[in-house]
Amino acid sequence: MAKKEIPYKIYLDEHEMPTSWYNVRADMKNKPAPLLNPGTHQPMTAEELGGVFCADLVAQELDNDTAYFPIPKEILDFYKMYRPSPLTRAYCLEKKLGTPAKIYYKFEGNNTSGSHKLNSAIAQAYYAKKQGLKGVTTETGAGQWGTALSMACAYLDLDCKVYMVKVSYEQKPFRREVMRTYGASVTPSPSMTTEVGKKILAEHPGTTGSLGCAISEAVEVAVSTPGYRYVLGSVLNQVLLHQSIIGLETKAALDKYDVKPDIIIGCAGGGSNLGGLISPFMGEKLRGEADYRIIAVEPASCPSFTRGVFAYDFADTGMVCPLAKMYTLGSGFIPAPNHAGGLRYHGMSPVLSQLYDDGLMEAVSVPQTKVFEAAEQFARVEGILPAPESAHAIRVAIDEALKCKETGEEKTIVFGLTGTGYFDMVAYEKFHDGQMDDYIPTDEELQEYFQKLPKVD
Amino acid sequence: MAKKEIPYKIYLDEHEMPTSWYNVRADMKNKPAPLLNPGTHQPMTAEELGGVFCADLVAQELDNDTAYFPIPKEILDFYKMYRPSPLTRAYCLEKKLGTPAKIYYKFEGNNTSGSHKLNSAIAQAYYAKKQGLKGVTTETGAGQWGTALSMACAYLDLDCKVYMVKVSYEQKPFRREVMRTYGASVTPSPSMTTEVGKKILAEHPGTTGSLGCAISEAVEVAVSTPGYRYVLGSVLNQVLLHQSIIGLETKAALDKYDVKPDIIIGCAGGGSNLGGLISPFMGEKLRGEADYRIIAVEPASCPSFTRGVFAYDFADTGMVCPLAKMYTLGSGFIPAPNHAGGLRYHGMSPVLSQLYDDGLMEAVSVPQTKVFEAAEQFARVEGILPAPESAHAIRVAIDEALKCKETGEEKTIVFGLTGTGYFDMVAYEKFHDGQMDDYIPTDEELQEYFQKLPKVD
Repeated sequence: MAKKEIPYKIYLDEHEMPTSWYNVRADMKNKPAPLLNPGTHQPMTAEELGGVFCADLVAQELDNDTAYFPIPKEILDFYKMYRPSPLTRAYCLEKKLGTPAKIYYKFEGNNTSGSHKLNSAIAQAYYAKKQGLKGVTTETGAGQWGTALSMACAYLDLDCKVYMVKVSYEQKPFRREVMRTYGASVTPSPSMTTEVGKKILAEHPGTTGSLGCAISEAVEVAVSTPGYRYVLGSVLNQVLLHQSIIGLETKAALDKYDVKPDIIIGCAGGGSNLGGLISPFMGEKLRGEADYRIIAVEPASCPSFTRGVFAYDFADTGMVCPLAKMYTLGSGFIPAPNHAGGLRYHGMSPVLSQLYDDGLMEAVSVPQTKVFEAAEQFARVEGILPAPESAHAIRVAIDEALKCKETGEEKTIVFGLTGTGYFDMVAYEKFHDGQMDDYIPTDEELQEYFQKLPKVD
Repeated sequence: MAKKEIPYKIYLDEHEMPTSWYNVRADMKNKPAPLLNPGTHQPMTAEELGGVFCADLVAQELDNDTAYFPIPKEILDFYKMYRPSPLTRAYCLEKKLGTPAKIYYKFEGNNTSGSHKLNSAIAQAYYAKKQGLKGVTTETGAGQWGTALSMACAYLDLDCKVYMVKVSYEQKPFRREVMRTYGASVTPSPSMTTEVGKKILAEHPGTTGSLGCAISEAVEVAVSTPGYRYVLGSVLNQVLLHQSIIGLETKAALDKYDVKPDIIIGCAGGGSNLGGLISPFMGEKLRGEADYRIIAVEPASCPSFTRGVFAYDFADTGMVCPLAKMYTLGSGFIPAPNHAGGLRYHGMSPVLSQLYDDGLMEAVSVPQTKVFEAAEQFARVEGILPAPESAHAIRVAIDEALKCKETGEEKTIVFGLTGTGYFDMVAYEKFHDGQMDDYIPTDEELQEYFQKLPKVD
């Protein structure tokens, strides 16, 4: 049977867009371990979590059984502003590489936040609004999540307080200004506005901050300010649920043209993009309906999957958050200052951690100069300047495509292109000027952090 | 008859994409005045123009009769990387304004150059490559055109030399870095690399440059370097021809849903976007098949249509280029330093100038603080951070929609959203901090420039 000719970009029609999120936990035999109360080491109850998160989001966080959550109409309407996102056949890259592989990428950068983060930001803001809250607090590193949340909050007239890792606040003033355009207040972290910030500053006066530290501050403000809750852009089960829209659209677009991927590749920091992209494919794999090679790509400078341990750990530096069982480098771990771009969180989504531990997916780590080489190669033929995060997936997609060139295999490769690099030009400049290196943590360093992991029976 | 429900975003399928450019000159009764040799004041011949521009582009430039030019397959393939661009129904903006007007915008910012400029960049680079040239030279102001040309040249393995207005070069290092990612060489203008640059620097040692000056340098390098030609991102007839893809797609998308616009609005600097957007609509108007209100929007600080004169003028500061008959503020005019964003060229496309002079379109000028107010309002509900250029059109679209609110008229408004503002955050910051003002040139200042216009019989 003649297959339909595949266009450069596959767009779903509005009526073909998914109307439910898919919860991969429902199909997991080994469920992700529950969050634990950091004091008692008992599973966090809905009531306890409700002090930090909105009620509806707590319900989503704890629900390991419901496979599909209908997307509220208000969120669907917002999605229609920037979704469906295109699934692009990388014809030009294939040609340039001379590979028989067929490469597709799901591009999530065509919205002002510049990444997929908006998919969960609008959901979390919506439930906060629905609950009658005044506002939300959060942290941001590279700034994609903070921008996304600012956009969602502006749309819903919700107050938005962002704690931005100090080094990013200073090096990325434009990101900060985008958030201001959307009406958010942005505070460099650690700051003197919180107890935990003061404590960290007293202990490490010159610190340029970390995600774990910014999380602690944002949580403190949320739990101590009436009418506020905390929201998080990655790691959590609820975030993977919202981000499943990426994978569902990808699968619907591929199905339209009867395409079955062999390999699915995503970059992995906390796991929001990877988890979302692979969800429906992993679901098929878990149900025994199909098989796919699924590859998580992480920076060699922050290698939680490939060099971390699978254990309960603190989600934040201030140790105010629940404990999560995940692949982790230890909550004190901060990537070396030479590390560009995001993917700098010390841990990994508990869902993905469990799937990885169960052998259902692979992980590789890549040095950043090789990542930027791939980024530039991709930009020049596919016309999109990728975020450094996304370029991790590009690197491995190109590597797999080159393997196909050697073997002559016509594999179908799908990868997630999470966003654009407009605010990462300092990193590109370093790369062009030969100022970028590939420092990776030593085993000794990592051991030091592992020894500080909390003891959980 | 029940009309089809209109989605948030109308995408054409790949097979619905236009395959020819439309040349509005073919339907103009009064053709645009020819370019003149600056020495003899005689119309430039194809041979004379061929020293500056590629042969195929010269043919397009001079052809006032052919209505449709088939788009070469190589260009169509490149278009498919980032086109069709979406035509978006601004449901959220309409709701926020409480207007009965129906607002649509054609968004050209979903490619890495961040604007519509890529549509002509790839065409001009393609014809240069076809002619066997080694490379092209150009100027760039805000950097959108330079970025677009760099992308096109990288794709075709063509050398690209960009002269960037010095003030932008210094204030927009990230733009510069994007061009470098695409392999272009970028020189701040005026520079010591050209005779005209040296002359301007000798006369005005502290100058921060202007578009007219950068054009002179780029032209000098093109005509004096074997295997090089000059390319330009706006003003020229050929550019409007290539940019007609914007209007053709817009019309095809509207036709799909039986929508007839009442008002079409575009920002106008040199006229590349406006000319492209309105082309097919203006064609219908010229042929008496339909009527539309067409509005050009320009900055109050650089008001060539609304306060300029319709006369032959130099296209560049160094006076090395042909003379063009256009609405102009005089080739020595440079907008005040407080002017943010593009739309800073002293003249206007000869095609649009003729159409405006013939009463076939209107023009309004708007102060920049009002432009940024509109930009922010738009960003908060439509989710796209607009370029300051594009925000000029947003301003007037909102104003027209608010008039409809008063009168109760359900007018259909279409405007061109040319690009994104990622590299304009310094301007947004000024706006947020109340540091932006609305200086406009006095009549006396303008008179001074008018008196220096060349005398052409």
